[in-house]
Amino acid sequence: MYIPTLDDMLAAHERIKPYVHRTPVLTSSFLNELTGADLFFKCENFQKAAAFKVRGASNAVFGLTEEQAKHGVATHSSGNHALSLSYAAGQRGIPCHVVMPHTAPQAKKDAVIGYGGMITECEPSTSSRETVFAEVQERTGADFVHPYNDPRVIAGQGTCSRELLEQVRDLDAVIAPIGGGGMISGTCLTLSNLAPGVKIYAAEPEQADDAARSFRAGHIIADDAPVTVADGLKVPLKELTWHFVSNHVTDILTASEQEIIDAMRLIWARMKIVMEPSSAVPLATILKNRDVFAGKRVGVIVTGGNVDLDKLPWMNS
Amino acid sequence: MYIPTLDDMLAAHERIKPYVHRTPVLTSSFLNELTGADLFFKCENFQKAAAFKVRGASNAVFGLTEEQAKHGVATHSSGNHALSLSYAAGQRGIPCHVVMPHTAPQAKKDAVIGYGGMITECEPSTSSRETVFAEVQERTGADFVHPYNDPRVIAGQGTCSRELLEQVRDLDAVIAPIGGGGMISGTCLTLSNLAPGVKIYAAEPEQADDAARSFRAGHIIADDAPVTVADGLKVPLKELTWHFVSNHVTDILTASEQEIIDAMRLIWARMKIVMEPSSAVPLATILKNRDVFAGKRVGVIVTGGNVDLDKLPWMNS
Repeated sequence: MYIPTLDDMLAAHERIKPYVHRTPVLTSSFLNELTGADLFFKCENFQKAAAFKVRGASNAVFGLTEEQAKHGVATHSSGNHALSLSYAAGQRGIPCHVVMPHTAPQAKKDAVIGYGGMITECEPSTSSRETVFAEVQERTGADFVHPYNDPRVIAGQGTCSRELLEQVRDLDAVIAPIGGGGMISGTCLTLSNLAPGVKIYAAEPEQADDAARSFRAGHIIADDAPVTVADGLKVPLKELTWHFVSNHVTDILTASEQEIIDAMRLIWARMKIVMEPSSAVPLATILKNRDVFAGKRVGVIVTGGNVDLDKLPWMNS
Repeated sequence: MYIPTLDDMLAAHERIKPYVHRTPVLTSSFLNELTGADLFFKCENFQKAAAFKVRGASNAVFGLTEEQAKHGVATHSSGNHALSLSYAAGQRGIPCHVVMPHTAPQAKKDAVIGYGGMITECEPSTSSRETVFAEVQERTGADFVHPYNDPRVIAGQGTCSRELLEQVRDLDAVIAPIGGGGMISGTCLTLSNLAPGVKIYAAEPEQADDAARSFRAGHIIADDAPVTVADGLKVPLKELTWHFVSNHVTDILTASEQEIIDAMRLIWARMKIVMEPSSAVPLATILKNRDVFAGKRVGVIVTGGNVDLDKLPWMNS
């Protein structure tokens, strides 16, 4: 297992700069008053493909040799990683193969196609996905880019915190959502090297709290198909992300579905930005752990903005 | 009738700087490709009180003498001007009286109260509003700040375009929504003095197109209670705003309700910002007048972000 280093992150940043935005940091005096903290929202919802994942995906795509790149890249995902990898491959002008269950919503298929990805459908089971994915790789020779358990991806995600350190002085802590742990691992990689005094918190839905339970147990616990509105956060940790989480994270905090929805609505209403439910989990946990964050300068990673505008979660609650 | 000057706008900018944001300018490669133009969105939805109107309101409030200020300010409005005047008065620590019909939505009353305004209710008729407003002024001695037909307000709104000129080089045109004409008048004041080569377009709902008809007729035409989703744009021009519109505007373009809603949804989906229907009218008109804007560098004023998140217009359409 290759653990990405500071140099990998710095090289990633140089490599991806032409293809990703240096996203802005927004503040809200209302939310600062409400939480007693100084919150600095790093807005990856304004990123290309509206997701931080374009950082890791671009690093993987543009790190390929010419020979490797000819065969394209491949992944299995129906979320932001698929969009991001399709975008990055399009920027390099190489194919991106995405294996998705035929039951995935048409909107998600359309989004991948809109970014230039090519979809191969599978049955909605892990065994079918693995079989079909193996066939695609065999046929195309495409390079597999895992959504998070890949050192190139983690090095890419680490560029987000590097920008945040340049944009905001004297941070006490950074908090980000945790699903598979790609963003948190990149954050750990960067901060443990460049700002080791900054505490790192991960935020997770109570209903998909496998990372929090793993953290307390001291080993990876994986849940089968948890259900949460924060649909980017359902996947389990893997060995590479576990390495960073177990070594560098101060704590993993959780929030209920209603707390996540309330925090999401509060951010939309007060900050006037569109972000997805996963991105609201950090604020939800800050609001219920006031004593942890009050008086502190806290970076909050807003991970993405891909949300169904026809079905906002507070309209069902 | 006192016509505000460039010096009034420059003085306003110095006066209000501590109380308003220098809002960011956002771009979208997707929307640039779609329109063939380079669009620069000046995001007043990120402004204090989520509306450009805080510029004019703050200029009026902080321009009062100490003696005048003691008696506070007053207005009749149930929209962004009421919020903005309440905010500005709160910053100076003086009272703000708002006359509103008792039939106004509770959410709008709560918003005014949330910003520290004091509401006096009237019947939902012009005669009742005028009677009640006169009583409030008589009782309190408060200074009346009209939402747009006031030179202090227009000078304040003009600061938005001044920032835009500093933020974006070589603009060919600026487009903003038009209701009563306060923002457009401020834009005319600033650009006619500082950048007279920049064309000024106003954008209006077809269903409340009194300004467009006034522009063609050469005199003010006022409609009684037009109905449009762009609820900030229902009010008529007045003599002061007519002065600027008739002298400096290149054209007034209109869009249908569906075009406004589609443009609003497109901005939310692609730019990941929350803005109100009125703010989508400029993009709606740009999309249907491609030949006017293609190849041009166009500033687009996003006027505000106050919208009911429980009732988004595309959900009814």
